[in-house]
Amino acid sequence: MSKEYRPPRGFRDFPPEVMILRKELISKIENVFKRYGFDPLDTPAVEYWETLAGKYGEEAENRLIWKFKDPWSDREYALRYDLTVPLARFVSSHPEIQMPFKRYQISPVWRHEEPQKGRYREFYQCDADIVGSPYPEADAEMINLIVDSIKSLGFESGFSLRLNDRRLLSGIFEQELNIKSPLAVYRIIDKLDKIGIDNVKKELLEQINNEEIVNKIIEVISLSGKPEEILENLYSKYGRNKLVNDAYNHLKEMLDLINNKNDIIIDLSLVRGLDYYTGPIYEVVLKEPKIGSVSGGGRYDNLAGIFSGKQIPATGGSIGIERIIDAGLELGLFNLNKKTFTEIQVIFMSQDLFKHAWHIANILRSEGYNVRIDLNRSKEELQRRKANKLDIKLLIFIGKKEIETNTVTIYNTKTNERANLNINELKDKIKQYL
Amino acid sequence: MSKEYRPPRGFRDFPPEVMILRKELISKIENVFKRYGFDPLDTPAVEYWETLAGKYGEEAENRLIWKFKDPWSDREYALRYDLTVPLARFVSSHPEIQMPFKRYQISPVWRHEEPQKGRYREFYQCDADIVGSPYPEADAEMINLIVDSIKSLGFESGFSLRLNDRRLLSGIFEQELNIKSPLAVYRIIDKLDKIGIDNVKKELLEQINNEEIVNKIIEVISLSGKPEEILENLYSKYGRNKLVNDAYNHLKEMLDLINNKNDIIIDLSLVRGLDYYTGPIYEVVLKEPKIGSVSGGGRYDNLAGIFSGKQIPATGGSIGIERIIDAGLELGLFNLNKKTFTEIQVIFMSQDLFKHAWHIANILRSEGYNVRIDLNRSKEELQRRKANKLDIKLLIFIGKKEIETNTVTIYNTKTNERANLNINELKDKIKQYL
Repeated sequence: MSKEYRPPRGFRDFPPEVMILRKELISKIENVFKRYGFDPLDTPAVEYWETLAGKYGEEAENRLIWKFKDPWSDREYALRYDLTVPLARFVSSHPEIQMPFKRYQISPVWRHEEPQKGRYREFYQCDADIVGSPYPEADAEMINLIVDSIKSLGFESGFSLRLNDRRLLSGIFEQELNIKSPLAVYRIIDKLDKIGIDNVKKELLEQINNEEIVNKIIEVISLSGKPEEILENLYSKYGRNKLVNDAYNHLKEMLDLINNKNDIIIDLSLVRGLDYYTGPIYEVVLKEPKIGSVSGGGRYDNLAGIFSGKQIPATGGSIGIERIIDAGLELGLFNLNKKTFTEIQVIFMSQDLFKHAWHIANILRSEGYNVRIDLNRSKEELQRRKANKLDIKLLIFIGKKEIETNTVTIYNTKTNERANLNINELKDKIKQYL
Repeated sequence: MSKEYRPPRGFRDFPPEVMILRKELISKIENVFKRYGFDPLDTPAVEYWETLAGKYGEEAENRLIWKFKDPWSDREYALRYDLTVPLARFVSSHPEIQMPFKRYQISPVWRHEEPQKGRYREFYQCDADIVGSPYPEADAEMINLIVDSIKSLGFESGFSLRLNDRRLLSGIFEQELNIKSPLAVYRIIDKLDKIGIDNVKKELLEQINNEEIVNKIIEVISLSGKPEEILENLYSKYGRNKLVNDAYNHLKEMLDLINNKNDIIIDLSLVRGLDYYTGPIYEVVLKEPKIGSVSGGGRYDNLAGIFSGKQIPATGGSIGIERIIDAGLELGLFNLNKKTFTEIQVIFMSQDLFKHAWHIANILRSEGYNVRIDLNRSKEELQRRKANKLDIKLLIFIGKKEIETNTVTIYNTKTNERANLNINELKDKIKQYL
């Protein structure tokens, strides 16, 4: 038979020790989402190609979306590329839902990337979105939620949230500086972190060929720092522009509702790739390690209604769990030490005691404990060795002596505590030893 | 833009009220899996086509597996068809893992079925498998786990587990009755529930053309009932056959370790479709409604090692959450009444009190409560109406009077209980009203 037994290139298996950590982190994020009043929605992994077409820009469309034809109907399908367009589709087909619709979805998405460190072809997005509110309150709630989520994972202060607004970019670059090819300019600005300010300037000069304008662009994208200062600075220079003025007021109101303003910097060089943003945009970057953003989002007032033709304001954010895990492991915030959910191993000293041990295991399971018992007729020593490898906390020994006295011997491998318990008191007393 | 806003045919969106139920049920199943000492594994949605090829039989291969070519590399991929073959691939590429490897995976799989009631193109499987034990203990643990899972969902006694063994089928039909085209015969037997015994007999006669043999087949597949009786009956007739004898001993040992023997019937007409089973096989069928099996599994000693060429014994089972939900809703065991995880809505009597209400909402969130606050500058009455539609239990009112007295007014919509609490005691006292 086939010798191919790797997962496809860019895809990964997650063994138990990784899954146990992933589940713990995802559950923390999910709890924060719920605390902010978000509820779960699930959309399918597969969408009609038409649903995704025209939403993500050229590169995604031509290269990154996994599309395929149904060989039976010739209809074109695609694996979902993010969770936002499926949300927009859902909202459009459910005019009855109550607005604002606050939903979260924690699911894999698929992108045909060239695999590299921190970049996979299947990865999870933890998304929360508010559909149906145009107000700064909604954007502020999103930012509080994102910051709380990152903190709940243990990144107390080792991050900052970079905030910008698409209207600042349009107002200043497209209207005030009158740049004719803004998308090309944004694409260059987007590379700032990677190539540095000098190279950005060089590329801008090639693109625009007007040093005065380029200098003004450089001046604007160099604005980064405390929200109030940057905003007032911008207002004094470009406040006459309607879009800048709108963004200024919106961001001011938002900032007034943000819990931890110390985590926020306004950064005019933040562009974000996705085409659909229309208002505030943000990204969370860890101070260490340098692995790009671990979260991002923004307002997209023209997407949620795109399928139904109505305008529906929306704002949302996404947390990338894979980079967070890579970073947390590197920082020593997380570890892969927990190899099993199993708390108790029941060990029989000889095979003739197996049935009794099985009975004890089932009693403990019915009490809600996670229990293993050897299924390979192993000798007692091997049973212990296997339990040790999985780092199981509590061992319960069943020997002849125990059966005669209607007891079990329990041993906590962490504290070296030992006890002999009567079977009738096992249920009540076991908790003390765990 | 595109007017296409349905999910693809055979795929579904799950709105919050459905997701809340699904999450609750899946979490119950997962807890039972953990109690039996199983740990999570995750494999990707996408596999190389070669990984799946040749594992599931002709129909799956030619019609049901979603396959597609990578347009860039021309390499063939497929969406996973079940969770068992990916597990086998994982085990083969990880010779270091400790046996027995007890893993669970709760994930969607994709099948290109013709959509119909209870049959979807994307559906979740809740799988638990024990890799590395050839013993009846492992099969018994699987059956105890499956029965406990079904019971944990609320199906106390409304089901039965039909048990058979592939070795009984091979020993009796292929060796004792000397049937030359067993697969065709099994396929006919498999239709018993749908077409009835008379039609099975008719089709068998067409296939075999020997009334004596057909009568013997009918006699065998009509054996169904209490495990001990059926086993002894079989043993007296076919016990001389090595396969029948092996199955007899294996099943006897298993049954000795099963907690609820009343839930089990041995049923010689149980065939199960998948090609890879080699020992005990089983299915769980609800008494009402008649929707086919909600769970199934068995031993497959030749699959887990197929990629590495070593023989690795394995046994496992799968629970189908979609049919269970359909059935539970029909029976009234489940409902979709819970529309939100949100427990508390903070209501501001006028917009100028918003910031204070926001502050209260954030205090409650930091205490771990799930809290909503209006984000649309709605009038107080509309805020209440929206909270009512979501059936949110506790309302907290912030009015001028409350602000003056540093209090909030709380109202439990279920009990009609009302109270005025000082903000300083809110954290401690709110629990009593939830």
